[in-house]
Amino acid sequence: MKEVKLIIVGFGNIGRRFAEVLEAKKGFISRKYGLGFSVVAIAEKNGSLVNEKGLDLKKALKVQLARNPCWTGRKSLDVIKSVEADIMLELTPGDIRSGEPGLSHIMRALEAGKDVVTSNKSPIALKFREIMEYARKKGCEVRYEATVGGAIPIINLYRNTLQVNEVRNVYGILNGTTNFILSKMSEESVDFDIALKEAQELGLAESDASYDVDGVDTAVKLVILANSLMGRNISFKDVKVSGIREVNSETLDLAKKHGSEIRLIGDVAAMEVSPRLIPKNHPLNISGALNAVLIETDVAGDIILVGVGAGPRETSSSLMSDVLDLGVRKR
Amino acid sequence: MKEVKLIIVGFGNIGRRFAEVLEAKKGFISRKYGLGFSVVAIAEKNGSLVNEKGLDLKKALKVQLARNPCWTGRKSLDVIKSVEADIMLELTPGDIRSGEPGLSHIMRALEAGKDVVTSNKSPIALKFREIMEYARKKGCEVRYEATVGGAIPIINLYRNTLQVNEVRNVYGILNGTTNFILSKMSEESVDFDIALKEAQELGLAESDASYDVDGVDTAVKLVILANSLMGRNISFKDVKVSGIREVNSETLDLAKKHGSEIRLIGDVAAMEVSPRLIPKNHPLNISGALNAVLIETDVAGDIILVGVGAGPRETSSSLMSDVLDLGVRKR
Repeated sequence: MKEVKLIIVGFGNIGRRFAEVLEAKKGFISRKYGLGFSVVAIAEKNGSLVNEKGLDLKKALKVQLARNPCWTGRKSLDVIKSVEADIMLELTPGDIRSGEPGLSHIMRALEAGKDVVTSNKSPIALKFREIMEYARKKGCEVRYEATVGGAIPIINLYRNTLQVNEVRNVYGILNGTTNFILSKMSEESVDFDIALKEAQELGLAESDASYDVDGVDTAVKLVILANSLMGRNISFKDVKVSGIREVNSETLDLAKKHGSEIRLIGDVAAMEVSPRLIPKNHPLNISGALNAVLIETDVAGDIILVGVGAGPRETSSSLMSDVLDLGVRKR
Repeated sequence: MKEVKLIIVGFGNIGRRFAEVLEAKKGFISRKYGLGFSVVAIAEKNGSLVNEKGLDLKKALKVQLARNPCWTGRKSLDVIKSVEADIMLELTPGDIRSGEPGLSHIMRALEAGKDVVTSNKSPIALKFREIMEYARKKGCEVRYEATVGGAIPIINLYRNTLQVNEVRNVYGILNGTTNFILSKMSEESVDFDIALKEAQELGLAESDASYDVDGVDTAVKLVILANSLMGRNISFKDVKVSGIREVNSETLDLAKKHGSEIRLIGDVAAMEVSPRLIPKNHPLNISGALNAVLIETDVAGDIILVGVGAGPRETSSSLMSDVLDLGVRKR
């Protein structure tokens, strides 16, 4: 059985849940794909756990990383460069202005000839071309299904099932928090502030919710979809962004009178994030904290995907999709 | 560039449209995948066009097959056995009782060591295990994305993007004709007979619509999904089937009063096809001739796919998905 070696960089919610899923699915993956995975390092910016023969994931999950007796001060960039592995998983939270520390992690892994799988939107949205060109030069792959739409396999759907199609447009609901707020406001006739507060209480929105409600998160995902599904070369500043703060009960009532709901839509062809009227019967008219994406293709017509757009467990499904794709090729 | 040789068996609506798409996408496929495809034979039961160096598809598409000057009486089963090729496309319409002539075509191709790609539901629904076991024995693959959901890549979504997931259930709207009729009845308050007549006038329903409206088509697709996504070993007779003839304006009004619509749902876990109440806000509540499938998974949660469930052009997208998957592996 082929053994695939992984380095996990970033061991927060997503990293830990990914490790749990990997551990739980060991037998399933070995039976189905004839592959074994071992995690040879878990790294944070200023320290790491390393075992070139494979870490005991159960133990690593039990305690905080820095309290693990094997924890050393060996830094992530050093681990990525020096520890032998096939794939580096970049699972840190990204800074949307600089893309760091993820960007440096990714470039370092490619430099060392390692494939990359990431859930980190910022570096992919900021430096798509640079990353992809450097990967090509080094004969490596960078996969990023988990950056858009949580559990929904949008990018791999296009890559692995709609191969013959050219994508004419991609648009939809790419942020579950705003969709939850808009659904709440419409269904229960409450104001924005009350709906936001409930989203915060449910853990669906940060205490500073501006990243979601001002449309920034949607715009970042739109940039990734534009560059990867439609061969564009755009960045965040090219996108016209309006959030949902201006939506109020009058606009929602007016929408309803026209048989529609208001949804925050990211639209690649229009390069725009804005609240839009979506007819009640339209497949994109989805309530609650879900994501929904419409891919307009030349042969298959419109394909709509709906699913859970966030959450560490669901995101692990997308990470595993990329990891298994790369693993199977190495087999 | 690797050249993949195809035999097309059955050159009706689907076969011709597939050939058109293949011809139109030649350059795209070669640039993107480094693959060339040549069609070395087009066969019907009692005759065929054969050119081992590759047929001129444009010419083949111009006239009726039997009027082509190169047409000979060489039968499909002989062509499948003797003409050298990588993949046999089985695109004939199938008889749901016997699975013929598709079943014989598929077994013959496997016997000759050829992979199979098919849009023909009947043999796959009737003889799934036998076909798959024989394929394994011969080291060949049988792919059938086009048998369920038209353009919607349900089977390859599971195979190629949700790899780590176990499927707990699959259910949804698998027949566009009945969904068109139910939508029409509900939205315009017309009777079943009137809605059916309009579906027939639009070419969405056959003059004998029983295969669709009695739920048979949905049940056949449910069997394929059960066996391929959930490892079951069921056949048509195991499914409890009720169609939509009993749905009337009173039931529809009652559904509306409860904030729901009636949709014909095929449900794998329940092994049942029946009209069900679907809440207005549920992602499966889709109007018109679309298909919508919900895949319940253990890691990714629920993934819903919506798209065009029929049509020769859209079905070609699914056929090409399988053909390219197999072609890329041979590269």
